[in-house]
Amino acid sequence: MVFFPKPDAGQFLRTLAIQDFAVSPDERQLVFSTNLSGKYNLWAMNLPNTFPYPLTFVDQSCHALLYDKKGRFIVAGFDRDGDENAQFYAVPPQGGTMKPIVYHENTRNFSPILSEDGSKIYYTSAKDNPKFLNAYCKDIESCREEIVLEGKEGATFLTELSPDETSFLYYRHFANTHTLMYACHEGEDILLTPPTDKQHMVDGGTFVSDSLVYLTTNYDSDFAYLASFDLETKAFRKVKALENESLGSLRFNKEQQMLYLVGERGVEDRLYTYDIHTGEWNELPAPCSVIDKLVTAPSGTLYVLGRSATKPHNIYRLADGEWVQLTKYNVPGIDQDELVEPDTVTYTSFDGLEIEALFFRAKKENDNGEIIFWPHGGPQASERKFFRASFQFFLNHGYSIFAPNFRGSSDYGLKFMKMVEGDWGYGPRLDNVAGLDWLIDNGYAEKGNILLMGGSFGGYMALLLHGRHADYFKAVVDIFGPSDLFSFIESVPEDWKPALDQWVGNPERDREKLIEFSPITYLENMTKPMLVIQGANDPRVVKAESDQIVKALRDKGRDVEYMLLEDEGHGFSKKENEIAVYQRILAFFSARSGA
Amino acid sequence: MVFFPKPDAGQFLRTLAIQDFAVSPDERQLVFSTNLSGKYNLWAMNLPNTFPYPLTFVDQSCHALLYDKKGRFIVAGFDRDGDENAQFYAVPPQGGTMKPIVYHENTRNFSPILSEDGSKIYYTSAKDNPKFLNAYCKDIESCREEIVLEGKEGATFLTELSPDETSFLYYRHFANTHTLMYACHEGEDILLTPPTDKQHMVDGGTFVSDSLVYLTTNYDSDFAYLASFDLETKAFRKVKALENESLGSLRFNKEQQMLYLVGERGVEDRLYTYDIHTGEWNELPAPCSVIDKLVTAPSGTLYVLGRSATKPHNIYRLADGEWVQLTKYNVPGIDQDELVEPDTVTYTSFDGLEIEALFFRAKKENDNGEIIFWPHGGPQASERKFFRASFQFFLNHGYSIFAPNFRGSSDYGLKFMKMVEGDWGYGPRLDNVAGLDWLIDNGYAEKGNILLMGGSFGGYMALLLHGRHADYFKAVVDIFGPSDLFSFIESVPEDWKPALDQWVGNPERDREKLIEFSPITYLENMTKPMLVIQGANDPRVVKAESDQIVKALRDKGRDVEYMLLEDEGHGFSKKENEIAVYQRILAFFSARSGA
Repeated sequence: MVFFPKPDAGQFLRTLAIQDFAVSPDERQLVFSTNLSGKYNLWAMNLPNTFPYPLTFVDQSCHALLYDKKGRFIVAGFDRDGDENAQFYAVPPQGGTMKPIVYHENTRNFSPILSEDGSKIYYTSAKDNPKFLNAYCKDIESCREEIVLEGKEGATFLTELSPDETSFLYYRHFANTHTLMYACHEGEDILLTPPTDKQHMVDGGTFVSDSLVYLTTNYDSDFAYLASFDLETKAFRKVKALENESLGSLRFNKEQQMLYLVGERGVEDRLYTYDIHTGEWNELPAPCSVIDKLVTAPSGTLYVLGRSATKPHNIYRLADGEWVQLTKYNVPGIDQDELVEPDTVTYTSFDGLEIEALFFRAKKENDNGEIIFWPHGGPQASERKFFRASFQFFLNHGYSIFAPNFRGSSDYGLKFMKMVEGDWGYGPRLDNVAGLDWLIDNGYAEKGNILLMGGSFGGYMALLLHGRHADYFKAVVDIFGPSDLFSFIESVPEDWKPALDQWVGNPERDREKLIEFSPITYLENMTKPMLVIQGANDPRVVKAESDQIVKALRDKGRDVEYMLLEDEGHGFSKKENEIAVYQRILAFFSARSGA
Repeated sequence: MVFFPKPDAGQFLRTLAIQDFAVSPDERQLVFSTNLSGKYNLWAMNLPNTFPYPLTFVDQSCHALLYDKKGRFIVAGFDRDGDENAQFYAVPPQGGTMKPIVYHENTRNFSPILSEDGSKIYYTSAKDNPKFLNAYCKDIESCREEIVLEGKEGATFLTELSPDETSFLYYRHFANTHTLMYACHEGEDILLTPPTDKQHMVDGGTFVSDSLVYLTTNYDSDFAYLASFDLETKAFRKVKALENESLGSLRFNKEQQMLYLVGERGVEDRLYTYDIHTGEWNELPAPCSVIDKLVTAPSGTLYVLGRSATKPHNIYRLADGEWVQLTKYNVPGIDQDELVEPDTVTYTSFDGLEIEALFFRAKKENDNGEIIFWPHGGPQASERKFFRASFQFFLNHGYSIFAPNFRGSSDYGLKFMKMVEGDWGYGPRLDNVAGLDWLIDNGYAEKGNILLMGGSFGGYMALLLHGRHADYFKAVVDIFGPSDLFSFIESVPEDWKPALDQWVGNPERDREKLIEFSPITYLENMTKPMLVIQGANDPRVVKAESDQIVKALRDKGRDVEYMLLEDEGHGFSKKENEIAVYQRILAFFSARSGA
């Protein structure tokens, strides 16, 4: 018999992912964006057969994916090497030559929507109004285009057409926790939540008829709930609220007259249906812990893209009450029970606030005693029970990982989420410090011996913790993190800017605070070995951010490694880059920890 | 509505392929070698689901693939970038870390066979006997190994164990048309065809019990037939012969007591069953024109890997009388009916011999009037109704392709196949010239205006035709073709050498003929523009062959382009290389033909 060696941890990083999917109206074809070939492309399967075949060879991430309602073509958005300037193409369902239908060089385009007959595309674009965006309706054949919505006050996105295509929904994004939805109906712009000075958000909204809209909102509530708005009577009605759980995305199935909703409860999601006529509310068993996308076909069949802590992205179909897994993405060569499920722990922060964290503990046979502390990105997101190849890679190498949902994280109510706004560097930082102390107090780590790693806001937080609490750590990794909030505010995409005052702060009004909250202020104290990773095309945290801190630290003679990815933006679109980064981090940690 | 442009012909070259496959004994897993990610790796599907997942990340071609009979592991052979030095690895069925079980640096290894209990591997190797090869039995756990068969007279390959594992079959390859099969039974070496001076071959052989062997052979016949040999009585029996059709590979299904056989008839294959008890003979409908591999599971389910002229490699399963296509390989973005089916034409050669050819005619809407003349490789192979991405690529660009099965081609009987032996440069060349004349006489081409392209022996023939009949052509492409038969004979793998005297000629005895048949003899006349393509690791036609002719022609000031593929051998193992080569050929043809 053959006895195989312990799996090469590199296998974890070989795990493939799915970015998005769509299903043809007749459900004979399922199209998805996946890195099956190492880079992202559209692939399809002809159901019920699940063998995938390639539709595109662009090797780029997909930023939008939808079907012509008659199934004659697909619309997909692709950017270039992570620059987030998505352009929209029509793709033949059998694959092959794509045709650009919305193409504006170096411009951010969003939210393509097709008319029922497939002749017109509605989309939101930065092309004429980079700060607030406009929405356009373009005739695909003649290329004639008209503006249908002018953005103002905040980035403005057209999101849905009414069934008769005379009305549409749009939202204005004033701040991450202040997003209002409107209907443009019979020439009138109608706000879909009652007027109030209290900030709130609308997560999703959908027409169920030409005059009735359902939406999920946290208007006058800490957690978002299902509401309806009648465009004729202007009546707003609270329909269904859950305790300590927000209702987020929703999909309407016209044939069934049923709403499908995702409930977000801390580190996990739930799945519900609501019959808009009988008012019947049901929870459906979910096939995974976190739901990334829901699709309901006219037949009533439900499709879900989702992940769990020990299971990567997969697409599932619910038919006859049974979930069938259509894709088969796993960690190559690793049984699911060899992967680590996190414990959900809670601890009390400096001011009494309760913080939930995911604690991934390396299995005994692998444990090297090291702890990686991971402040998540966002910051108005949360670390949830979704698969991270990098986590399982480090876990298999013996590193345990602690990931706190510090104040500002989403999925714990509006009040909690707001706590990071205008306070990037104080409360959230001390929640992380409390998490570090919890690890030490409970004997999981020793002060000065902790490895720190974060990406995006987590990279910022890693830099800040390094600058202000270096004595906790022995090595620090910053992935795509801003180091100077002034230059960060300066360099983000234009359409982010209207929300930045509330989110981060105003460079003039909040000058002192932004200095206090900027990691670069504490350069002098960043004495531990550091590895900085940056994508050259990152439109959110531009290269100059990382160049700046690396140069400053090197000028001081500090131990700083710098890894620049020439063909990436704010994330990894190429498998080989992702593998190279985590192998580099592993080598860095291993050299600095003697593990 | 969206109207899509004409497909980019580059899509044809994106077509994926399958090299080999195996099915687990319980039929719950199907493993196959495919270039789904651009390079070859093992992938698997968990039947009945057909979504594939990767098992290996070696990025190399697979040279052998089999399952442990208890399904606990897989054995696969991989070489390095086309060097054909296959090493054998055990691969866990869930994928991941492979374990080398037969590894001899820079050595050719062949035909791995596992014992019933999976503890021992039998294999044939060049390691101690590069010319005639030996076979070994290696204990996988202890790595102890003993020699079980010593090669002599011709390359000697162990091919099958008897059910009780006390006997085995092997064959000696004296020449391409002279291959004898033996059983080593109770210490005795038994020749399985009656002794004769007349050369013949045994294509396949299998034990159906410890003392009864079935084989396909053309002993005393022009076409191969099914025969049996009783190891106890030493009786050879002709069992089933077909008219003008050779029976080739055969598989025995023990549970059904049934033989499955492939019949080779010119440009197409057929599929048969033979019940060894009742003698019932049946033809099964085949799912494709050419069958590359047959697998029968203990349940009786039949699996086939095969191709047709307009359909690339796919794996099919026959269940309840219905073929189900498990994989879905097509030309991306192209309907099958947009591809070109060849016409089968016949013409008479200089000496009255009838030659069959496949004539792929570009569709009217694409036709650019150009003809590519393609002498196939081998030469003891034939151009058949199997998909070639390159052919459909050129056809879509408007080029028609003419591919004759000149004398020496397989699939037309033993006598026809022998006609190239010792006569590389006369009869086969004139058959090609007769094909060129047929094209001209029938108005398909004009003399001096024909494009010539060939690979391997076809590359040799392209060079020779260029040197001796340059007036037919306007541009010539040589892919991996030998230019000088003396250096070719010198440089092929050692185990080929015993067969070379008969196949090509002896450098001393046949000196004059080899000079006459070597393209390099006619350098002076190679006046047309030429493109030479060579794989740096090619063990069959070594790099020096191409270097030599390119240098010689350039010294004469001729128009010669040279494309060297650093990480390829005698073929394409990397999609990107294949695409680059055919795009280069297209550019070359197009520049030289004004098309």
